[in-house]
Amino acid sequence: MGNDSNGIRKHYDGTLIPGKDGQMMEFSPMTKLLVNGFKASAVSADIKGQESDRLDMGLIVAERGATVAGVFTKNALSAAPVRLCRKRAESGKAAAILVNSGNANSMTGTAGDEDAAYLCNALADRLRAPDDVILPCSTGVIGVRLPVDRMEAALDPLIANLSEGGLEGFTRSIMTTDTMPKCSKSEAELELGTATIVGVAKGAGMISPDMATMLAFILTDARIDVEWQRNTLKDSVKDTFNTITVDGDSSTNDTVLLLASGVGPEVRTWQDTAAFQKAVHQVCSDLAGMIISDGEGSKKVVNVKVTGAEETEDALRVARTVADSVLVKTAIAAGDPNWGRIGAAVGRSGVELDPSRFSIQIGEVKIVEEGEIVDGFQEERVAEVMKRQQYDILIGVGDGDCDGTIRTCDLTEEYVRINCDYRS
Amino acid sequence: MGNDSNGIRKHYDGTLIPGKDGQMMEFSPMTKLLVNGFKASAVSADIKGQESDRLDMGLIVAERGATVAGVFTKNALSAAPVRLCRKRAESGKAAAILVNSGNANSMTGTAGDEDAAYLCNALADRLRAPDDVILPCSTGVIGVRLPVDRMEAALDPLIANLSEGGLEGFTRSIMTTDTMPKCSKSEAELELGTATIVGVAKGAGMISPDMATMLAFILTDARIDVEWQRNTLKDSVKDTFNTITVDGDSSTNDTVLLLASGVGPEVRTWQDTAAFQKAVHQVCSDLAGMIISDGEGSKKVVNVKVTGAEETEDALRVARTVADSVLVKTAIAAGDPNWGRIGAAVGRSGVELDPSRFSIQIGEVKIVEEGEIVDGFQEERVAEVMKRQQYDILIGVGDGDCDGTIRTCDLTEEYVRINCDYRS
Repeated sequence: MGNDSNGIRKHYDGTLIPGKDGQMMEFSPMTKLLVNGFKASAVSADIKGQESDRLDMGLIVAERGATVAGVFTKNALSAAPVRLCRKRAESGKAAAILVNSGNANSMTGTAGDEDAAYLCNALADRLRAPDDVILPCSTGVIGVRLPVDRMEAALDPLIANLSEGGLEGFTRSIMTTDTMPKCSKSEAELELGTATIVGVAKGAGMISPDMATMLAFILTDARIDVEWQRNTLKDSVKDTFNTITVDGDSSTNDTVLLLASGVGPEVRTWQDTAAFQKAVHQVCSDLAGMIISDGEGSKKVVNVKVTGAEETEDALRVARTVADSVLVKTAIAAGDPNWGRIGAAVGRSGVELDPSRFSIQIGEVKIVEEGEIVDGFQEERVAEVMKRQQYDILIGVGDGDCDGTIRTCDLTEEYVRINCDYRS
Repeated sequence: MGNDSNGIRKHYDGTLIPGKDGQMMEFSPMTKLLVNGFKASAVSADIKGQESDRLDMGLIVAERGATVAGVFTKNALSAAPVRLCRKRAESGKAAAILVNSGNANSMTGTAGDEDAAYLCNALADRLRAPDDVILPCSTGVIGVRLPVDRMEAALDPLIANLSEGGLEGFTRSIMTTDTMPKCSKSEAELELGTATIVGVAKGAGMISPDMATMLAFILTDARIDVEWQRNTLKDSVKDTFNTITVDGDSSTNDTVLLLASGVGPEVRTWQDTAAFQKAVHQVCSDLAGMIISDGEGSKKVVNVKVTGAEETEDALRVARTVADSVLVKTAIAAGDPNWGRIGAAVGRSGVELDPSRFSIQIGEVKIVEEGEIVDGFQEERVAEVMKRQQYDILIGVGDGDCDGTIRTCDLTEEYVRINCDYRS
């Protein structure tokens, strides 16, 4: 992807991230990517066989073990590592996450299942851990067998490189078409002390509601009941990762894991649970925002907010239809105040609505109210809003109490170029 | 759009159409666009106010009246002309179709309803016909009021220009981003003689299942019971216009009308009905094929065929998800044998499937069978197929008896450019 040769990432020190224009910008609330109880590392295994030294394998190890909760893609043809990871996460116990980019090990049949299991076993042997606490994740091209030999050869260097500060390299090793590493940190004030929550993620294209090609790993030193841990993750994913869309495509490999090392303070009261939930939610929200900002070829981020629906599901359905519309996304790219495309998408969403209660507003400019174009509406004012890098599209569909928001980005010629070139 | 200035259409004589490369190619079964009982015309009304002399208003008149059947968009925010046309078509009677391009009269509130009705009334007065047999259709930009004065001024020239051979100009007047006029002709051998069926259509972008921005007018001299006429149209639209997709967006203005002048032979036996149905279906199929071939910026047409589903609806749902996938469409554009994107789209379609019964074939090349990559599979062979202008993607999802096909096209950088530039 050429991301490693542009020099940006070399300056990455864990407090700044490169903005779209290449300038470094401060990334709050980011400090050091350290969580007690975890070590991480990354190496190049030349997964794609292009004699590249790009980081493409990463390892996270919970040296004293961890509890785990996972949320996985709903794609009916989920990849081999997803099937194995999902099954193993059910136990609630994990010792390590083994990740690679460049190859998704998806649509690889039973051979793919065997490859994933083989590599996990090889790692387990080396870590002297049982097989079933090694969680595999893969991202990259679909339909190609993993280069198991090269990957197995990378296991010893991965283990040798493990360090408490290794998450930064790990984050880079999971990138595919991402233009920037994605990480976030928050803290939860618990009765017994402060718990740290750090999250790292990858994802640029193929991002959609229901978690498209996205991997996110959230680590905490808190000690928590595994059922609470599962609920915390599920709730946080729902209105963060599951409300973003880049291209409406959902992947076979999406995985979000929350690992708790338990060496820090315990989550034991209802107040603790709420504080912990809030902190995890914050990390998920930050990461989701970074993923949408990094949509392939995208330059703008737009929040599509739908209000007045009878059901939350209806509001989200309308918002998703607008957010996924190729015509809306090209209009956003062009800064073209062609709001009719928004209306057309609302109308075909399949949600019943009364045309006389319909409204559209872009930024602060009201366009349609109660089904009529607003008196004195000036298209130029919408065009001004649409020059911004970030704005809201507000859609009213009736008198109901429910609303929903989906974050989307523009569709540019560059997106098409990236996706035509991805494998060549 | 620059379509009128490239010289191509000037050579259009009703037997040839311009191919994608600008070369004229023979268009079978096209002959002359004549149907007894109808006259047509087209003029420039400068709908967009750009002092252009592009044809943008068209008129079809059934001088002795006609019976009519219509199929309309399901978009909940359908345009003013659709609402009026749908209501009037319920009577089964029509005398004229008044069409404009350049402005969809959509999202224009009650003022838009009044504009549509006003123009129909103005035409009715001039034709000395009742208001309610004038059917309006519009296509173009959404959210802008019609230039009623300029359009009313165009009515007299439209009427003065009416001629039996006027359908060719009419077809041009309804084009927006279309690069070629679209027309087809067939005949039905009925017991009492030969009936002629001629169809003309517009549509390039914003074409999707459930009939996106598409207008189609099918004229016949047959005499037919209006209930039969309605069933014929409904059945024909179902697996022609409703199975194509360019960009997954459905419009507020889609309209297909079938008008029968009744001055030719009567459809009166079951054999007649079958012959007539077949001929109308042929015309709809031809027009749908031309629309997908003319997808904005597209260079390739792909049939996505799904077999082995438990229900036809499931097969179509899988096929639509693949056909609408931006990642699949960019892979088609690039000729990239990245079949994993197809699998990913199948998996997220929401249809339950058994991964071990899943198969993919592109052209004649089998890729996945029973969930496993075929032994000796060579990606290069798929790449060869994907160089063709037209090919099939075959997807097996199980042992069921139901199948379904959706026709799609590639997504190119040019598509994005067209849709970023559409209004500027």
